[in-house]
Amino acid sequence: MATIKDIANRLGVSVSTVSKGLNGASDISDELRQMVLDTAVEMGYATKKSKKEENRKLCIFIENMDYETNNQFGYEIVLGFKQNAFRHKWDVTVVPVTPSFQLAEKYDTYMLKNGYCGAFLLGFALHDEWMKQLETTTMPTVLFDNHIKKNPNVCYIGTDNYEGIDIAIDHLYTLGHKKIAFLNGSLHSMVSEQRQEAYYQSMKAHGLEIKESLTAYGYYVADSAKYHVPTFLGEGATAILCGNDLIASGVITECQLRGFRVPEDISVIGFDDIPISSMLEPPLTTVHQERGELGKCAYVILNSLIHHISISKTLIRPQLIERESTARCQAPIVTKGLLSKQE
Amino acid sequence: MATIKDIANRLGVSVSTVSKGLNGASDISDELRQMVLDTAVEMGYATKKSKKEENRKLCIFIENMDYETNNQFGYEIVLGFKQNAFRHKWDVTVVPVTPSFQLAEKYDTYMLKNGYCGAFLLGFALHDEWMKQLETTTMPTVLFDNHIKKNPNVCYIGTDNYEGIDIAIDHLYTLGHKKIAFLNGSLHSMVSEQRQEAYYQSMKAHGLEIKESLTAYGYYVADSAKYHVPTFLGEGATAILCGNDLIASGVITECQLRGFRVPEDISVIGFDDIPISSMLEPPLTTVHQERGELGKCAYVILNSLIHHISISKTLIRPQLIERESTARCQAPIVTKGLLSKQE
Repeated sequence: MATIKDIANRLGVSVSTVSKGLNGASDISDELRQMVLDTAVEMGYATKKSKKEENRKLCIFIENMDYETNNQFGYEIVLGFKQNAFRHKWDVTVVPVTPSFQLAEKYDTYMLKNGYCGAFLLGFALHDEWMKQLETTTMPTVLFDNHIKKNPNVCYIGTDNYEGIDIAIDHLYTLGHKKIAFLNGSLHSMVSEQRQEAYYQSMKAHGLEIKESLTAYGYYVADSAKYHVPTFLGEGATAILCGNDLIASGVITECQLRGFRVPEDISVIGFDDIPISSMLEPPLTTVHQERGELGKCAYVILNSLIHHISISKTLIRPQLIERESTARCQAPIVTKGLLSKQE
Repeated sequence: MATIKDIANRLGVSVSTVSKGLNGASDISDELRQMVLDTAVEMGYATKKSKKEENRKLCIFIENMDYETNNQFGYEIVLGFKQNAFRHKWDVTVVPVTPSFQLAEKYDTYMLKNGYCGAFLLGFALHDEWMKQLETTTMPTVLFDNHIKKNPNVCYIGTDNYEGIDIAIDHLYTLGHKKIAFLNGSLHSMVSEQRQEAYYQSMKAHGLEIKESLTAYGYYVADSAKYHVPTFLGEGATAILCGNDLIASGVITECQLRGFRVPEDISVIGFDDIPISSMLEPPLTTVHQERGELGKCAYVILNSLIHHISISKTLIRPQLIERESTARCQAPIVTKGLLSKQE
């Protein structure tokens, strides 16, 4: 592993200049400091410095996820992580990041510069610049809802999507539903792809027919309902499983606009159990993600990575929350091609 | 949750009799004690008692896995678990169990009777009696290499088999191999099924042709080699990936018996990295399971389950250990149907 002297030799500067760069002294230029840090990271110096436990500093990076108030998806995840970390005497900083921030700052360099021993990343998508950098990062990193192959420093954490979809379909099956449509989230999201595969597996395991016309990808927004719900209803679906609660709220509205009562005429089930889901009309049956547990577990896993236990993946159990948007299946009263309910 | 009084009412005995039964007093009959314990478990009393942390007692149950000396598969797993548990002031008891023991003792009852707060189970197979009981156990349980669906008290821990197979195939691909055979472990083992699926996925991802005649299930024993290696060689395989190191040792012997040099004529790669694999002739290239980390991580996960964080699955990263049983692919010199090497 590189020493300060190696970095100084590579850059053709003095050891004290490198030392100043690494320690954030103000009497060298910003450009030189950045060069020292980038070189330190490139030469593997990062690992040595940032794993010093006396720093006791962890970071939560958040991209594209709301977390600041207790009705938002990320709130309890961040809280659970902080609670567990504080109990073990770590400082935790929350840093919201944008795509341009990721282009301006290298992940490892930013970690090193700020003396973080490890990080928890929330809300990042496959196309994010830092996702590429995670393939080779030397920093202990726990990544929510995305998986990086073969890097022992990065662990994927999330809810067990296969089990989540399976308990939802099991619930609908028990209520007598056979034509179960699935309006998924965004295509090209790892989570959506897992849920899609889980839908096929669970339908098959329950002996239910899979029709391609009963599945579609939306965009994790309520608005996607209006493009797909008419088809599902026309195909005689008696239940619609949704990629998240927002989609489910759109699906309920769309069904009601077309004269279908939820749950009497059609059952709707969500995923996530965000706080508003109990306030929908009717209150939403949904697959609960234990967000507080996810956050707490993320800390436990990050601490393991810091201690060189290379965990690749950790999944939390989901739970079905039965509210009022699902009910026993009635004989369908629509026929194929007919897009509104007959009275 | 049931109280001592509820149990007494159900059995029609006094509260003090139930208390004696639960606390192992010697002045009641064995039959009555067993009945008290079984009823306590059935009525959900188990959870209350055994989760009392002051007990600080954990158990490792081992079925069909060698662990007592440092050349055996289970040794480091048990050691890693104990090391981490002792550091956190838990007592750990190791209990080897047989199929008949499982028929004689109910899992939850045994846990309750001995005051264990949680357990780590190694070496259990799908047909084991306790595996059925794990579907409904209320005891925090970490299970090595098997997955129980939907029970929030049980977590599956193991090596990431998908990544393990992928790094092995990636290694062979990089060496120029295209006809890569796979001699897997036992059919109907979850681990074997994952590795089989991983083999198909990785071959496809590397753009390599999949031939059914190049894959077979063995029984995790060296002896399985002689039934399948002749076919693989006849089909022109230039590399053989094996379900574990024992199978690989048999494959090497079988190849050598047929006049094929390892690795000059055929590359062989194992899985597990058990201590003997470095002593084979040639020393075996294999996928290393980080057994010490697995054990340490199993403790961390069990501790999380005890604190009501319901983890479903935790996977550890495997590592490729390059020794001398793999080499760059030579143009194959055998033709289909010819079972021994031409000089």
